Amino acid sequence: MLLENVNQPADLKGLSIEQLDMLAAEIRQFLIEKLAATGGHLAPNLGVVELTLALHYLFDSPVDKMIFDVGHQAYVHKILTGRKDRFDTLRKYRGLCGFIKRSESEHDVWEAGHSSTSLSAAMGMALARDAKGERNRVIAIVGDGALTGGMALEALNHIGHEKKNLMVVLNDNEMSIAPNVGALHNYLGKIRSDRHYVKAKEDVEHLLKKIPAIGGTLAKTAEKLKDSLKYMLVQGVLFEELGLTYLGPVDGHSLPNLLEVLKQADNVQGPVLVHVLTTKGKGYTPAEADSFKWHGISPYKIESGKVLKSVGAPPMYTEVFGKTLIELAEQDDRIIAVTPAMPGGSGLLEFAERFPGRMIDVGIAEQHAATMSGALAIEGMKPVFAVYSTFLQRAYDQVVHDICRQNLNVAFAIDRAGFVGADGETHQGVYDIPFLRHVPNIVIMMPKDENELRHMMKTALDYDDGPIAYRYPRINGTGVTLDQELKAIPIGEWEVLRDGSDAVILAVGPMVQLAMQAADLLQNQDMNVRVVNARFIKPLDDVMLRKIAKDGRPVLTLEESALDGGFGSAVLEFFVKHQLPVPSLRMMGVPDCFIEHGSISEQRKEVGLTLENVVEQVQAIVPLKQKRA
Amino acid sequence: MLLENVNQPADLKGLSIEQLDMLAAEIRQFLIEKLAATGGHLAPNLGVVELTLALHYLFDSPVDKMIFDVGHQAYVHKILTGRKDRFDTLRKYRGLCGFIKRSESEHDVWEAGHSSTSLSAAMGMALARDAKGERNRVIAIVGDGALTGGMALEALNHIGHEKKNLMVVLNDNEMSIAPNVGALHNYLGKIRSDRHYVKAKEDVEHLLKKIPAIGGTLAKTAEKLKDSLKYMLVQGVLFEELGLTYLGPVDGHSLPNLLEVLKQADNVQGPVLVHVLTTKGKGYTPAEADSFKWHGISPYKIESGKVLKSVGAPPMYTEVFGKTLIELAEQDDRIIAVTPAMPGGSGLLEFAERFPGRMIDVGIAEQHAATMSGALAIEGMKPVFAVYSTFLQRAYDQVVHDICRQNLNVAFAIDRAGFVGADGETHQGVYDIPFLRHVPNIVIMMPKDENELRHMMKTALDYDDGPIAYRYPRINGTGVTLDQELKAIPIGEWEVLRDGSDAVILAVGPMVQLAMQAADLLQNQDMNVRVVNARFIKPLDDVMLRKIAKDGRPVLTLEESALDGGFGSAVLEFFVKHQLPVPSLRMMGVPDCFIEHGSISEQRKEVGLTLENVVEQVQAIVPLKQKRA
Repeated sequence: MLLENVNQPADLKGLSIEQLDMLAAEIRQFLIEKLAATGGHLAPNLGVVELTLALHYLFDSPVDKMIFDVGHQAYVHKILTGRKDRFDTLRKYRGLCGFIKRSESEHDVWEAGHSSTSLSAAMGMALARDAKGERNRVIAIVGDGALTGGMALEALNHIGHEKKNLMVVLNDNEMSIAPNVGALHNYLGKIRSDRHYVKAKEDVEHLLKKIPAIGGTLAKTAEKLKDSLKYMLVQGVLFEELGLTYLGPVDGHSLPNLLEVLKQADNVQGPVLVHVLTTKGKGYTPAEADSFKWHGISPYKIESGKVLKSVGAPPMYTEVFGKTLIELAEQDDRIIAVTPAMPGGSGLLEFAERFPGRMIDVGIAEQHAATMSGALAIEGMKPVFAVYSTFLQRAYDQVVHDICRQNLNVAFAIDRAGFVGADGETHQGVYDIPFLRHVPNIVIMMPKDENELRHMMKTALDYDDGPIAYRYPRINGTGVTLDQELKAIPIGEWEVLRDGSDAVILAVGPMVQLAMQAADLLQNQDMNVRVVNARFIKPLDDVMLRKIAKDGRPVLTLEESALDGGFGSAVLEFFVKHQLPVPSLRMMGVPDCFIEHGSISEQRKEVGLTLENVVEQVQAIVPLKQKRA
Repeated sequence: MLLENVNQPADLKGLSIEQLDMLAAEIRQFLIEKLAATGGHLAPNLGVVELTLALHYLFDSPVDKMIFDVGHQAYVHKILTGRKDRFDTLRKYRGLCGFIKRSESEHDVWEAGHSSTSLSAAMGMALARDAKGERNRVIAIVGDGALTGGMALEALNHIGHEKKNLMVVLNDNEMSIAPNVGALHNYLGKIRSDRHYVKAKEDVEHLLKKIPAIGGTLAKTAEKLKDSLKYMLVQGVLFEELGLTYLGPVDGHSLPNLLEVLKQADNVQGPVLVHVLTTKGKGYTPAEADSFKWHGISPYKIESGKVLKSVGAPPMYTEVFGKTLIELAEQDDRIIAVTPAMPGGSGLLEFAERFPGRMIDVGIAEQHAATMSGALAIEGMKPVFAVYSTFLQRAYDQVVHDICRQNLNVAFAIDRAGFVGADGETHQGVYDIPFLRHVPNIVIMMPKDENELRHMMKTALDYDDGPIAYRYPRINGTGVTLDQELKAIPIGEWEVLRDGSDAVILAVGPMVQLAMQAADLLQNQDMNVRVVNARFIKPLDDVMLRKIAKDGRPVLTLEESALDGGFGSAVLEFFVKHQLPVPSLRMMGVPDCFIEHGSISEQRKEVGLTLENVVEQVQAIVPLKQKRA
């Protein structure tokens, strides 16, 4: 086993190409075996085994900066930089992070869970290098899917302009998570299908140099002719026009070819883009056959490729969302679903089959998706922008400036609100309440269970006074019976689930269940706790809050969301704004720090969102005289 | 005067081209005269007179949707759609909006103060049109500067892919506000300089069709040859590769040429881009000579082009920022200034001259600017990201995911924090506190005067524990003496400016002055008010707040920022989080609605941020028994 002796990039340097190829096979086997137990991003990493080997073989990390766009394609990099022994803990609590993590290794120079940041990072590092008079390489490794992201295009535009030495390795596997969309993708496809035209760059340049220089009025014509010949013979003119030297396409599973083109690239002055063609899931038949499914995968049986699933669990909220949207769309042809490259993750695949043309996948392009939804609304459609909480962060300005300021009827289906588990700190959906609730005109809801989600979707459809959001978690539903008839919920009306006069728990989303359990336990201690399903985060239930203030009941607010500027904070503000007496109050939620990967229950425990703590907090606010012990 | 009889687009239809030309001259005269009195965006509008006339002459607004990217180039559109009589009120309180405003006219179909949204809007409107089976035109009019914005590129990528009928009019004036940067801009420049190569599209297509069809193995070669010829003869291959038909470039001041190319464009199936070359400030010599200065201009003398300025006013905060950054950069070569296309507006022109290469203008590209700053910080530089509060909204995710999550030493110089005056609701800087303060790791400051701004800049430079922001308003300073020696302020330490035991005002930024004035007035009523300069919005002053809670002093918080999730809300949360008694408290700030254009003092008055109200609120919270009247 070669892999046994590879603990750092330096260990690669003496190997022959044949040995590197053997090592590639061993790494594939390692990934397939390890991820069978832990789950993880298998297909993307199987696709970049040779590429990562070639980079670490030729270049000199960490002096040379290797910047992985979306760290989930960096498992091979982790294996080669001293972390292979920790793969049993991949994506587990306190275990190896599924993304790049600077605290794990000096070879991890840039962290990212969101896509399309690597080019900006590379540009910054190249600028800093030159400012300091240093000479290291800066290499961004980026998938073709990430190039649809606006910030990657902003960076490309800047890179082509500044002409700093910087290498972009474009890992073109024709996929982001779902198949890619976009004109740039089509353009890359054209190059792929044209591979027999590939000529080595220098051959063409050499040829062009042979054309004699012409002066006078013909010079311009001659120059144009040269450009034209170049266009005929060299691929990637689009990138060349943007100021980058283009090399490729090259077979990303051929180490000799990869090494050759990367060496060429290393000699280029100024920015260079190397176009590498890879196959997602390469070397593992089930993953090659369905790289979409195998992008991020749960534990599986290696031989059969069968994924181990918990059986009999209630449907995920995401699934209920997808099915309900079909029901609604059958009755209302104004509904158009919009997704930024997440048709599968958002539960929209069946919808897309059922209503061709009514699901618009714009690629990784949240800003465009949001604003386009706004324009759809202006023209009388009922757009549903389905987006993960963490990715909606990318469209904050579009929500404020385009949608809420113009008060447009866009529905936001905010998935993965709250903790997300193994994806960890880059993906936590704990900021959408604080970054949305101060924006004028928007309504924000969260259901206590999957049945209420369905009614909220109807509420959003019926609502015609501006933007409205429903957020839901990345968990299974409670298993509650689903009502067939959908009814709109009056805007701003909370629901009392259990009455009690000693204290009030105002709970949001899945926290409602926790509140109910706590109330049961407290009942045993003879404490009567009112539990309120605070299903509207904005607007708050004016009537109910006024009554709480009047009655002077102690209050506990409970949310799986950042405390600062969150729901509890809104409740507090309410009392002050209306000059009501502020009751004795506690707030439970996510404190002011980033929460790393683990299971959702581990994450809840880490921040104290446990049954035990809810009980304790209620006990603390109920005045002694009322405790009838 | 032709203009007298033009009150709606239909009034143009019968005019001859000669008459349209006369009308163009009249409109220019109108703009020059009106804006001499009101100020406004003169140069951009002088550049699009013929273009706007041609669009309204040929097409049928509002059935056809004309979407202006950044509405400040839409004055001519406003003149032609029944609003010329209101130009005396331009950008004034309750007057004509300086941007597109849907409530003003049915011809205003999409509002934008931020750049680069028009392509997404056009795509949404085209999708809705097709879904409804309608046939109207959708036309986005966009400046070349806006194309550096990531969301415009996201949209372009989607437009080229979807192939909907949609027209993009690229108004190429070589400028956004400052001269443009970026590879795309260089590419457009190449086309401009190459104008004698322009051939009518159909000529080339015709020529190409004459090449006989070839079968078998030669077919691909022939196809490639055709592409190559096209590349030689037709401009705009980059856009063609992205799936749009490219027409142009055309002289944007020649009505016959414009009308011809727009008619051609109207016959294209699928998306088409018309490249129009215009001159900013066209027809008014001072504005043509310095279109940068004349982009947005204060009232001026028509004959001399001399701008009327208030003399003797203290320097703007922006100016103090620019000068202080030079002082700091002289002593610390790690400082690099980053701007998203606002070198002038951010007071960085002198800095750029003084330190070539240390001001990086990335174009309109806030996301890239932020993340690139993060990478600069990782490599040991001290990036200062100078950005308007409202434009930082575009980089919210980059602040959270890239900078704060990785805890990088980026300094945010947030200009135009608070009300911005005539630019109005699209530009108000009243959300950065609520959208930043829940983000872990960031420090947020605001100075009470321009001298304190200088010390805060030193504080930020010395701070090495992560991201730090100083925000400052779009107003003149107080005229205070500027200290020469700069000293870091201890993080989280507020400043008591005046002591008093009856109540405490916690004031932020320019509101400190208001608080001091109020305290003076209240003193006359024998009320002693403590005034605190709450210069840290995050972290809060722990010691001082605990003391306030302990002493039970009534508190008024005072900020020119959104109340929901704002500074006052943070103060409230503090008491609850630390289980301290919540004192009698009032919060003053900006309520939950968008605030339109006007002067800053009118905007303050509209939301009640007046001396009178501060006095009243303090009187209301001071208990009667303490009033020693």
